[in-house]
Amino acid sequence: MAADPTRVAVVQLAPELGDVVGNRRRALEAVAAAAGAGAQVVVLPELAVTGYCFRDADEARALAEPLQGPSLAALHDAAVRHDVVVAAGLAVLEDDGTLRNSAVLVDADGLRTIYHKVHLWAREPEFFTPGDAPPTVVETRHGRLGLLVCYDLEFPEWTRRLALDGAELVCAPVNWPDVGRPAGERPLEVVTAQVAAATNRVFLAVADRVGEERGTSWVGGSVIAGPEGYPLALSPLDGGTAVLLADCSLAEAREKGVGPLNDRFADRRPHLYGFPGE
Amino acid sequence: MAADPTRVAVVQLAPELGDVVGNRRRALEAVAAAAGAGAQVVVLPELAVTGYCFRDADEARALAEPLQGPSLAALHDAAVRHDVVVAAGLAVLEDDGTLRNSAVLVDADGLRTIYHKVHLWAREPEFFTPGDAPPTVVETRHGRLGLLVCYDLEFPEWTRRLALDGAELVCAPVNWPDVGRPAGERPLEVVTAQVAAATNRVFLAVADRVGEERGTSWVGGSVIAGPEGYPLALSPLDGGTAVLLADCSLAEAREKGVGPLNDRFADRRPHLYGFPGE
Repeated sequence: MAADPTRVAVVQLAPELGDVVGNRRRALEAVAAAAGAGAQVVVLPELAVTGYCFRDADEARALAEPLQGPSLAALHDAAVRHDVVVAAGLAVLEDDGTLRNSAVLVDADGLRTIYHKVHLWAREPEFFTPGDAPPTVVETRHGRLGLLVCYDLEFPEWTRRLALDGAELVCAPVNWPDVGRPAGERPLEVVTAQVAAATNRVFLAVADRVGEERGTSWVGGSVIAGPEGYPLALSPLDGGTAVLLADCSLAEAREKGVGPLNDRFADRRPHLYGFPGE
Repeated sequence: MAADPTRVAVVQLAPELGDVVGNRRRALEAVAAAAGAGAQVVVLPELAVTGYCFRDADEARALAEPLQGPSLAALHDAAVRHDVVVAAGLAVLEDDGTLRNSAVLVDADGLRTIYHKVHLWAREPEFFTPGDAPPTVVETRHGRLGLLVCYDLEFPEWTRRLALDGAELVCAPVNWPDVGRPAGERPLEVVTAQVAAATNRVFLAVADRVGEERGTSWVGGSVIAGPEGYPLALSPLDGGTAVLLADCSLAEAREKGVGPLNDRFADRRPHLYGFPGE
């Protein structure tokens, strides 16, 4: 059980669309750099190997790989070599031809879980089949980890479920498109992550990306939020690649108390939350 | 229906514990000031007439009043005189002796709805019986309004429900105790309100308080958030009383689209959100 803090890293990369070999290499270099800085859990962005802005489904399928492909093998190798747990977003082509926007959790034992993004953003339904199952919480040597992908974070029902299922650290590969914001405002995506962490008293590690693909740029808002909802590490939003680190006492996420008399979970009134018409 | 913007005011007051007559007078003065500035909907803080930090249940009961009491009459009179809709937090003593932490919505027609806070904070259960019913969405001449009170906002299931029930503007009387925050951070309570607005694409008008009662001080974070989640008006957090205004095109909250291809409601996967064990 994790009594000591776990050093968590989020890696903000700049994948180049279609440069699978180069993206994979840069991701592995970043994992090595994070581990060199003491990271024990490393989170990489969504679709970290393929890039994001596919022209069409054919291009997406051509860039994807089977789950038991070179990216998973390389991540496993890195997990062994650096003694880290890695969460990463990959485009996964299933045996029956289904293409998924997935996140994998890999440690020295190999693949611990795979999660298929349930809430698809923008044109993603042209390329990907959405998942139909919640993420599995995995007991690792550093604590209980769970996965979500990008737009999933904007559905508080989903973050709540993962927390109720026992996740202490939610690892979230994302690609947050930059849609602009009022001057001086922190991106809404970042504060949404903060609030998801606070509402559930979990740690939340979001690895965003930078760079540009076919006219789309990105928030570059990688963040590690603690169970009080404030950032423990936050990208300066300057558009650069980065490895952000925070020491997270994950056991704190098992205590749902807020103030001396309240509790994020026990204070819920679930029997009142039914949604008429659903 | 409201094609023109609705001018919404949140009134940040400094109630003095037990000074029912003075607090009521200052609340009414603030409603008049807001109306003078063109406000059509005015939100007052939680427990705006009694104050908050009761010593014990006897003190709370002594300061409370029946629903059909002088505060409701005064708010109705103000609504008629100034042609405004008013939302306010009151301690309401029911006929059977039940004490409630309530919010009322009043317009020129009188009391439109009352909501009893469902999620009680800190010592409130010593004084108040929690509500057992969701807030009712009220069709007003300015749009569809709903009520929540303070800690309710920290349960995304509850804000979601109110939005699904059709609220376009959520009026939230609050008393946010100041529990401190990291330097340079916006209070988590404020960003929680922002995210509740964005997640549901509603307007959210939060009236907080300032002043000090028995060693407790307050965030003073009154805010009006728009459906993109960014503040349209935000208290400068300098501890002062204030009337904050924002022009809100409430009809925008009927459109749940986010980007050209997504929708805050239609993208939900409610059949996946069941919570095991509940």
